[in-house]
Amino acid sequence: MSVSAVAADRSVCAPLPVLGRDVRVPLVTGGEVDYAALDYAASAPALQRVWDDVAAYAPYYGSVHRGAGYLSQLSTDLFENSRRTIAEFLGCRTDDQVVFTRSTTDSLNLLAAVLPQDTRVFVFETEHHASLLPWEQRGDAKGGAVTYLNAPRTPGEAVDTLEKALAAREPYGPALVCVTGASNVTGELWPVRELAAAAHAHGARIVLDAAQLAPHHPVDIAELDVDWVAFSGHKLYAPFGAGVLAGRADWLQDAEPYLAGGGASRKVSRRTDGGVDVEWHTTAARHEAGSPNVIGAYSIAAACRALTEAGFDDLVAREQALIARVRAGLAEVPEVNVLSLFGDDAPRVGVISFVVEGWNSSHFAAALSAEYGIGVRDGLFCAHPLVRTLLGSDPQTQGECGAPEAAPGEKSLNAIRVSFGAGTPDEHVERFVNAVKELVADGARWNYRTEDGRCVPLR
Amino acid sequence: MSVSAVAADRSVCAPLPVLGRDVRVPLVTGGEVDYAALDYAASAPALQRVWDDVAAYAPYYGSVHRGAGYLSQLSTDLFENSRRTIAEFLGCRTDDQVVFTRSTTDSLNLLAAVLPQDTRVFVFETEHHASLLPWEQRGDAKGGAVTYLNAPRTPGEAVDTLEKALAAREPYGPALVCVTGASNVTGELWPVRELAAAAHAHGARIVLDAAQLAPHHPVDIAELDVDWVAFSGHKLYAPFGAGVLAGRADWLQDAEPYLAGGGASRKVSRRTDGGVDVEWHTTAARHEAGSPNVIGAYSIAAACRALTEAGFDDLVAREQALIARVRAGLAEVPEVNVLSLFGDDAPRVGVISFVVEGWNSSHFAAALSAEYGIGVRDGLFCAHPLVRTLLGSDPQTQGECGAPEAAPGEKSLNAIRVSFGAGTPDEHVERFVNAVKELVADGARWNYRTEDGRCVPLR
Repeated sequence: MSVSAVAADRSVCAPLPVLGRDVRVPLVTGGEVDYAALDYAASAPALQRVWDDVAAYAPYYGSVHRGAGYLSQLSTDLFENSRRTIAEFLGCRTDDQVVFTRSTTDSLNLLAAVLPQDTRVFVFETEHHASLLPWEQRGDAKGGAVTYLNAPRTPGEAVDTLEKALAAREPYGPALVCVTGASNVTGELWPVRELAAAAHAHGARIVLDAAQLAPHHPVDIAELDVDWVAFSGHKLYAPFGAGVLAGRADWLQDAEPYLAGGGASRKVSRRTDGGVDVEWHTTAARHEAGSPNVIGAYSIAAACRALTEAGFDDLVAREQALIARVRAGLAEVPEVNVLSLFGDDAPRVGVISFVVEGWNSSHFAAALSAEYGIGVRDGLFCAHPLVRTLLGSDPQTQGECGAPEAAPGEKSLNAIRVSFGAGTPDEHVERFVNAVKELVADGARWNYRTEDGRCVPLR
Repeated sequence: MSVSAVAADRSVCAPLPVLGRDVRVPLVTGGEVDYAALDYAASAPALQRVWDDVAAYAPYYGSVHRGAGYLSQLSTDLFENSRRTIAEFLGCRTDDQVVFTRSTTDSLNLLAAVLPQDTRVFVFETEHHASLLPWEQRGDAKGGAVTYLNAPRTPGEAVDTLEKALAAREPYGPALVCVTGASNVTGELWPVRELAAAAHAHGARIVLDAAQLAPHHPVDIAELDVDWVAFSGHKLYAPFGAGVLAGRADWLQDAEPYLAGGGASRKVSRRTDGGVDVEWHTTAARHEAGSPNVIGAYSIAAACRALTEAGFDDLVAREQALIARVRAGLAEVPEVNVLSLFGDDAPRVGVISFVVEGWNSSHFAAALSAEYGIGVRDGLFCAHPLVRTLLGSDPQTQGECGAPEAAPGEKSLNAIRVSFGAGTPDEHVERFVNAVKELVADGARWNYRTEDGRCVPLR
């Protein structure tokens, strides 16, 4: 379906208004153009509705859980209601807790910190570093260990690999599986429901990294039957420094507080021996010491409301049309290789990574920005093992910025990622596809990598 | 000096415009009134300048350290420039690092997590829980221990107590002192420079909890000769979920990352034995895994600029006049007892706690809100040992909300705190003093604690 066909299809909704939709940026070739924000997978722009809600609340900002005044009471209500809104958005079970963190990374570090003694964690090497690294970093002190699973090439292989690894664990003790809902590199959906069933069949629990899923797709914690969900505000159109860990209360209640301080402590007393006794809260507050980020929490709730009210299914349908357009456009360029773990038919969200034969990916991304006003990302996307696997590159190679140009026939060391969502107009996607074709056909107009750091025209 | 005299004194600047200055709140007695936010010590309103700067930036929001697009580059510059602005505001030394956290609590938990093996921490029992509790919670795994020091009754006694404790430590190994700059209960200034000299003379390091100092008083890390400073945005007129730990880089560089994830990791590779190797950054990014809270960081930098440009010394002079007015007003009411560790002559910031003979503090605070539109705080202020020491109450008593009324001659179990700062107009302070006098003289008009939870008129 072409973009004009998308626009003409009345069943497809319009993009949601976002901040920055009118921002103009300069081009090295002269003039300026509307900025095309196509790096949603890193940080999405704020929904206008989210900004408006935050702006309306800001004059009423007050201390949460801490004051006797009218605005403190109002802010406390707003904060706790935000928790309920998010629980509803995620389809939480009655006893689930919603803990406010600063990001998905923070949420998964929190969960890693509350693992019961001797918990073995199972994680595919294909995960984002936020899902890959906290377990070994945090769990060592408690006798835990991590099993890294090789990249599967089908969803079914993922389930089989996990089942075998869980069944073979020795001892057959407490276990946690951490899995992404949608890859931050390929956008491909993982078989979360099946992985959750496998985990539970083998006495393990499972946490869903929904950083890339929640902004693009409804997530229902009870229906997926996962134990926890983690996601970030800044990828869900609410970039105010907050994230969420939602799910089972027991491990959270039983563990030491994530942060020690006020708000988490119910009562603190000197002992007669000079020490200090602390009674900690058992609610979400146990892990939320310090003054809560009420604007961050409220902004996430505002985003949940806005997505729900806009009709999340309609947003999904529209995004799928944009994905189809980008993939069809890239398929017309033989020099472009789209990175994929599960193949062309895998369901996916609006996150697509690729390399261009003969091009340094950083150079290509710089040209998209400087000559077309398009913001994408280049590099290994905080998922080094996955991207190296997909590129077939040497694991000892750095990749990232500064990698040399890959000559024809050579393997690229890093990749380009384009990503979009509820606020992306058709024109951004159309401009991107045309820019890729033009750059591949004609080359860049400027050299972005001169020795003295200046950009100079090539033609 | 009366408030009208303050207003007439042309050397005293006007309050800085803050969000919420026009918010009206209803009174139980009918009608409405401008809200008097007198709980700055918990959370200060955003400066209008801070809000305006955030609003101007928000459309240009993009991923930090992660994108090739124009707005990503701009956002990265803005984020790193915010670090430099804050370093300058704090008078940082050349090699100091500025790490963005989510709050003072988070900053001190971070420092607790990076303590070298076997570090003994020295902390007065008078500290806020954020400064009191992280050390035992985080340090245990690394052989550390905590020495809690009794409340001193003069600044000199504080220095003596610390010196003796440091000299007597066995073994005479690595040590850290954590001390507040200004008490969150009494507002009194601690002798930071002298305590830093004592710490260094005894081979210890020192971290300054500047949560209550930085919003009210210039802080110069080099001049005070402290090793680290921690503070929060939400008390510094920048309530966007960020805080700061600034100071010596060595312990930070040498320790395991505070959060494991992207941004903190430079390179991640599978090993041939199936494990994962990680190279971590050694800059501030080492402890900032996950997408940075760029709006939070920028808002703090905006607040630093606004306070500097307004003339921080003028703001201090104005606040001192307001403090004098409140203290003089409270001194005229014999039933009011102001809590103090260091006595009437101690230098202080705009944070004053007190009890009213014969009143339950929660009831008194509720009456200030409901009948006068004044927001204060009641309770033990996340500094339980200090408040109990000041009240002379039984350490096993809960205090906090729900404490029974103290009959004449009995001790109160919790206290009332009034706090203010750069945005406080004279009228708020004047209204507060008059309200205290009227409530003590005439009693509350309503009963806020009926059995069925309804408020009912008393007279």
